[in-house]
Amino acid sequence: MLNVPALTELRALFGDRMSVAGTVLAEHSQSESLVTAGTPDAVVFPRTTDEVAALAAWSTHHLVPLIGWGAGTSLEGHALAVAGGVTVDFREMAAVLEVRPEDRLVRVQPGLTREALNHELRTTGLMFPVDPGANASIGGMAATRASGTTAVRYGTMRDNVRGLTVVLADGRVIHTGTGAPKSSAGYDLTALFVGSEGTLGLITELTLKLHGQPEAVMTAVAAFPSVGKAVDCVIATMQMGLSPARIEFLDTDTVAACNAFSNLTLPLAPQLLVEFHGHPEGLAEDVRRFRELSGEFGAEGLQWAEQQEDRTRLWAARHAAYRAILASRPDAKAVVTDVCVPISALAQAVEETRADIAASGIPGPILGHVGDGNFHAILMVDPAHPDEVATAKALAARMAERSLRLGGTITGEHGVGFGKLGLMADEHDEAWQVMGTLKRTLDPLNLMNPGKLVPGAAQP
Amino acid sequence: MLNVPALTELRALFGDRMSVAGTVLAEHSQSESLVTAGTPDAVVFPRTTDEVAALAAWSTHHLVPLIGWGAGTSLEGHALAVAGGVTVDFREMAAVLEVRPEDRLVRVQPGLTREALNHELRTTGLMFPVDPGANASIGGMAATRASGTTAVRYGTMRDNVRGLTVVLADGRVIHTGTGAPKSSAGYDLTALFVGSEGTLGLITELTLKLHGQPEAVMTAVAAFPSVGKAVDCVIATMQMGLSPARIEFLDTDTVAACNAFSNLTLPLAPQLLVEFHGHPEGLAEDVRRFRELSGEFGAEGLQWAEQQEDRTRLWAARHAAYRAILASRPDAKAVVTDVCVPISALAQAVEETRADIAASGIPGPILGHVGDGNFHAILMVDPAHPDEVATAKALAARMAERSLRLGGTITGEHGVGFGKLGLMADEHDEAWQVMGTLKRTLDPLNLMNPGKLVPGAAQP
Repeated sequence: MLNVPALTELRALFGDRMSVAGTVLAEHSQSESLVTAGTPDAVVFPRTTDEVAALAAWSTHHLVPLIGWGAGTSLEGHALAVAGGVTVDFREMAAVLEVRPEDRLVRVQPGLTREALNHELRTTGLMFPVDPGANASIGGMAATRASGTTAVRYGTMRDNVRGLTVVLADGRVIHTGTGAPKSSAGYDLTALFVGSEGTLGLITELTLKLHGQPEAVMTAVAAFPSVGKAVDCVIATMQMGLSPARIEFLDTDTVAACNAFSNLTLPLAPQLLVEFHGHPEGLAEDVRRFRELSGEFGAEGLQWAEQQEDRTRLWAARHAAYRAILASRPDAKAVVTDVCVPISALAQAVEETRADIAASGIPGPILGHVGDGNFHAILMVDPAHPDEVATAKALAARMAERSLRLGGTITGEHGVGFGKLGLMADEHDEAWQVMGTLKRTLDPLNLMNPGKLVPGAAQP
Repeated sequence: MLNVPALTELRALFGDRMSVAGTVLAEHSQSESLVTAGTPDAVVFPRTTDEVAALAAWSTHHLVPLIGWGAGTSLEGHALAVAGGVTVDFREMAAVLEVRPEDRLVRVQPGLTREALNHELRTTGLMFPVDPGANASIGGMAATRASGTTAVRYGTMRDNVRGLTVVLADGRVIHTGTGAPKSSAGYDLTALFVGSEGTLGLITELTLKLHGQPEAVMTAVAAFPSVGKAVDCVIATMQMGLSPARIEFLDTDTVAACNAFSNLTLPLAPQLLVEFHGHPEGLAEDVRRFRELSGEFGAEGLQWAEQQEDRTRLWAARHAAYRAILASRPDAKAVVTDVCVPISALAQAVEETRADIAASGIPGPILGHVGDGNFHAILMVDPAHPDEVATAKALAARMAERSLRLGGTITGEHGVGFGKLGLMADEHDEAWQVMGTLKRTLDPLNLMNPGKLVPGAAQP
């Protein structure tokens, strides 16, 4: 609860772009997953970096936490006000500020969504490929180091953010990165803020790397006799040096859900959905090689989607997979998992996870960005049955433990938020303490998204 | 000067792998460039992470600085003991610890050189492509965020270090990164230490990303009617989405020096040296496109080196360019510059630099990794003539200013060391203060490579 002077000053700063209305607070207390907690005391909608800087000074003066909010699509509770405070909704900072086609760069505000960005770029021959599925905001994607289907070729947000403007906890504004493609001029502050989940500062501007829209695209879907064969085909594809733009795994349950939800007729078997980008001459050879390779792993009915509309339909179905899976069990809520392992351990990780889920009795289709060793199980539970929720959470914890045992990470792309706080020590050991030290240095009053990512942040 | 108890304890820790011999100290006071200063009080040759951790504890107890030393090929004085202390020479930690072909990873010790690593990998079908020219140590390359000829395709050390073991100033040992291709589990500590130049800790182990040895390689050299045409051809090549593995620019003076030194007969004109990697089918098209494009920019005598030995000869000459240029003016020393600008500003940056150098009367051939916007002028001065040295330093300072004015960086790949300390505030402004804050947090006693990179580090 904000005291009167704090509220008065906040209103003076933001006018009618500050709200304490119940509906607005409720909207900013929601999460797309089961990870929920906390309600902000107010929501503000800044328009400039200067306004965010003034807000940080206000926050320091009144000791009120600030929590960044992009599109609200995060799955680990990153944008929730677990300790109260002011949610900073960037929807009014959603502009494309500058497109620099010659340098393949674009400067944007954090509230811009990736779909809006690509819409803006459509006539430039360029694209921003990072694609987490949801129409997330660019600022949120940077804050959580998001990735998704295309990371296997184009990299994650780590690789595609060239520079940032950041408002620090004390209200100072810094700029990181340059317009040059590389630099060795000191600490990589850009990389420090990408993935910091708003705990070190608030990102108010981003310079992103763009990529050429591919001259030619080939998409295929192939059914495999087993999960192991499909995964082994992925490993062989990567090891052969074929460089797919996307290579996605869908297990049989996921395929069934997608068929029903998106009106497809894919065979009920583990599937790979693969896409190559390039010039037509190079692509023809990629396609030939993938055909040969997938045949060696028993793929049947390999279909190349030659037409744009067929490709769009397939990827739309892939992107709708989460909703499709949820729709397959009405009234269910999802415990969404996200592990990432070395490619050599991928088959074992997926098979063990499948067996574990099967034994639990909880529906849990598996899908993932397997070219990166990254996969998700969507564990569907009836929230009215606490035992189901507990079982799902135990499954998720075992997935994370398994990932660590196999040399992987507790989260490939969803981030820590507060949903994965309890696993951080297991992954990082003493390095997690170093993260806490860095946090306390840049935010000594613990006002930037408290309760997330670092040690000492209580799990709600 | 170490006091007796400190020296006694150091000898107890390292035995005959500790030296205070004049020749050893002198060897570790040298630099390949004009940037020289300071002599260590002792040099140690650790064999394990534990020994380095014990050394850090010793350093904290006795308040003696520690300076990492790889191959001594840095150009900005990174490895020099500007405030005395103990130089930590990693030559006895030079092992390949583990090759994981399935995951395309290798785990190595920091003293290993990149040539030794690639020799070790030669039968695996894999390679470590980052190539700064010099046979640098992997630890040093990570510490300075090195790159070089192949970064345009394979990235810099930022992109190719997957994880680290680091000994912190207080002797704690942390591990960063995992075996998974990506992660969003907290702050990117790997990226924080890559490029930190030994000022935050000492790297004692690295996990590196490997790449497939290319199935086919095509290398070409082409002469252009002007610097501008050559650079414009680079810009067009990158914008067309052709993805060269290397694309190097050599100005006429550099070509003349290489011809003389490496016994080549290249035409005396600005040249591009370009290489494509891929499968034969894709390469044929890359080659066709580059031929067409370079023709549009007036390239003459485009020669493709079909044979491995011809390619090796060309790249050996490129790598010898620094020595070739030095040899072109006997007894000269070099002021080596290193700027990196947005591609759109590359032609202007190179042309203005050329004119500035020509007006100065100092020989200064230009060459660079132009696909990344990165280039160097090798300013040759007679160290006996202080006016020449001063003129060269003023030229170098104007290059850096020009780079910043054009949206670039003061150093694309050589790092800061103490040679570029004076330019850091101009590039980073308040963000440089944040670097200083991070440094003081992780190294409050200023014992890790003091005098480098951060504010407050006095320039010798």
